[in-house]
Amino acid sequence: MYYIGMDIGGTKILGALFDEENKITERVKRKTKAEEGKDMIFSQISKVIEELIEKAGGKENIKGIGAGVPGIINMEKGEVVFSPNLPWKNYNLKEEIEKKYEIKVTIGNDVNVGIVGEWKYGAGIGKKNIIGIFMGTGIGGGIVINDKLYEGSIGAAGEIGHICIMPDGPYCGCGARGCLEALASKTAMTKYILAQIERGRKTIMEDMLKESKGVLKSEQLQKGYEEKDEITLEVLEKVSKYMGAGTASLINVLNPEMVIFGGGVIEAMGKILMPKILSYAKENAMVKIMESCEFKIAELGDDAGIYGALNLAIGE
Amino acid sequence: MYYIGMDIGGTKILGALFDEENKITERVKRKTKAEEGKDMIFSQISKVIEELIEKAGGKENIKGIGAGVPGIINMEKGEVVFSPNLPWKNYNLKEEIEKKYEIKVTIGNDVNVGIVGEWKYGAGIGKKNIIGIFMGTGIGGGIVINDKLYEGSIGAAGEIGHICIMPDGPYCGCGARGCLEALASKTAMTKYILAQIERGRKTIMEDMLKESKGVLKSEQLQKGYEEKDEITLEVLEKVSKYMGAGTASLINVLNPEMVIFGGGVIEAMGKILMPKILSYAKENAMVKIMESCEFKIAELGDDAGIYGALNLAIGE
Repeated sequence: MYYIGMDIGGTKILGALFDEENKITERVKRKTKAEEGKDMIFSQISKVIEELIEKAGGKENIKGIGAGVPGIINMEKGEVVFSPNLPWKNYNLKEEIEKKYEIKVTIGNDVNVGIVGEWKYGAGIGKKNIIGIFMGTGIGGGIVINDKLYEGSIGAAGEIGHICIMPDGPYCGCGARGCLEALASKTAMTKYILAQIERGRKTIMEDMLKESKGVLKSEQLQKGYEEKDEITLEVLEKVSKYMGAGTASLINVLNPEMVIFGGGVIEAMGKILMPKILSYAKENAMVKIMESCEFKIAELGDDAGIYGALNLAIGE
Repeated sequence: MYYIGMDIGGTKILGALFDEENKITERVKRKTKAEEGKDMIFSQISKVIEELIEKAGGKENIKGIGAGVPGIINMEKGEVVFSPNLPWKNYNLKEEIEKKYEIKVTIGNDVNVGIVGEWKYGAGIGKKNIIGIFMGTGIGGGIVINDKLYEGSIGAAGEIGHICIMPDGPYCGCGARGCLEALASKTAMTKYILAQIERGRKTIMEDMLKESKGVLKSEQLQKGYEEKDEITLEVLEKVSKYMGAGTASLINVLNPEMVIFGGGVIEAMGKILMPKILSYAKENAMVKIMESCEFKIAELGDDAGIYGALNLAIGE
């Protein structure tokens, strides 16, 4: 018997077939084609499922399907209430898939599901209270409390990119000002670097950003750091400070056993950034709370989502 | 049969006798006399308990004792790990009282216990996910998650006064900078008002603060507001803004069903401050999270602690 775990993103869908020992036996990857509308997305999801069903030797061999989806998810109903990256609103994805394949489906918020992956199969095994902080284009997170993913009252808990670190600070994509995401995400870093270039400062990031069409890559940051590029060092220091303040705020409120840092930026630069972030966090966190908390880098990388989805499918 | 609920503070101890319908039948109040040391505090606690036992007609009529205590509390052990206002460190208060009276004792953090009071008997009846925010000399809070008080991994969860609202902001009593408490507590307000007086600005707070020996009272703020004192209006606006940013951060992370505002400042000025705080919160919170959250003023006032302690004693 097998389970299917899926990570449905705004640009790609990852799918995996898990055997009964929670090992990945097959992987499938497809474009989401979100810009082509709802029917196309469902057709892409279906292709991923069907490929995996075939590899499993038929749908009678699939015990369940789990999927992470960006947005506010009502897990009980299996409904995508709202998604920032997909054209779904009050869309019952669970029912749609179940109707078509007669296999039990469980869906959850993609970042939350990633945290579940790290908690059950990665950096957080055995812990009961965890905060996951994912640093990439945006900043997302998830919270495990009393040995259970905490969803909040409408499935929107864990929006840790939107804690306010600076009232009257820069505008955030969410419309508010001074959110952690507006100060420490790759989007925020890009803005800072471009502003410095605009001010006539020299940086090796200028050519690199041109090459990548203005999209800042974590590897570019790593390169800038290695070459001791002044502006890269500056932006990394600033970001670490804001991340430290945010981390301190979160642990002061939630007093977790562990904080897991993940996402593209951490995958590329975790070893450099973590000590900085933690040193700033130490300045702001309550001493006993900081001392009692373990800080780890995520271990599953891009697979966190499909592993978390496996856990949803198993239904623990 | 009766229960005893106690609220053990840095300056006073409140005790109450509850009958089986959760009604208060007797009240006792004594000074804590914390400055006279551990033995004196225990003796004061004992007097409160003994008075209530007597009113109950003997200790065989007491089913349990609950108490809220300031500091980090290990509820399972009944140990005060650390208290900012009382000279206790790794002190097992539960065992001490149980040894002396042979009545089951349960203790918890005072602010958390106050939130439990509001949740079970006050503003939050029937809710499963609540954040309580108490604004007074400091800013404290507590979190109810999935129908249970959330304590955190070492019993220190809910330190919402110490979320960082302003990196490099003013120093806080905790040693960090820019904490909500350093910006929006009565202590912070006092500093702001004194600084304005120092700068030669006129305010009716000057005489009032002299009269109260520099201790800012919530009623003074109310008076200043009613008389349209410029500096009072200024400080209330600033405080509302910081509280709004803090509230937004908290609900974005925890997506609660309800936020309960309490504490001295809110008791005196809640009707004036709440609309301001919520209007600022609305600017920073995720729209759907804000819309789905109910905001209420605490209903039990100073009794929240003893009611919460009753709940500990009942052991739900």
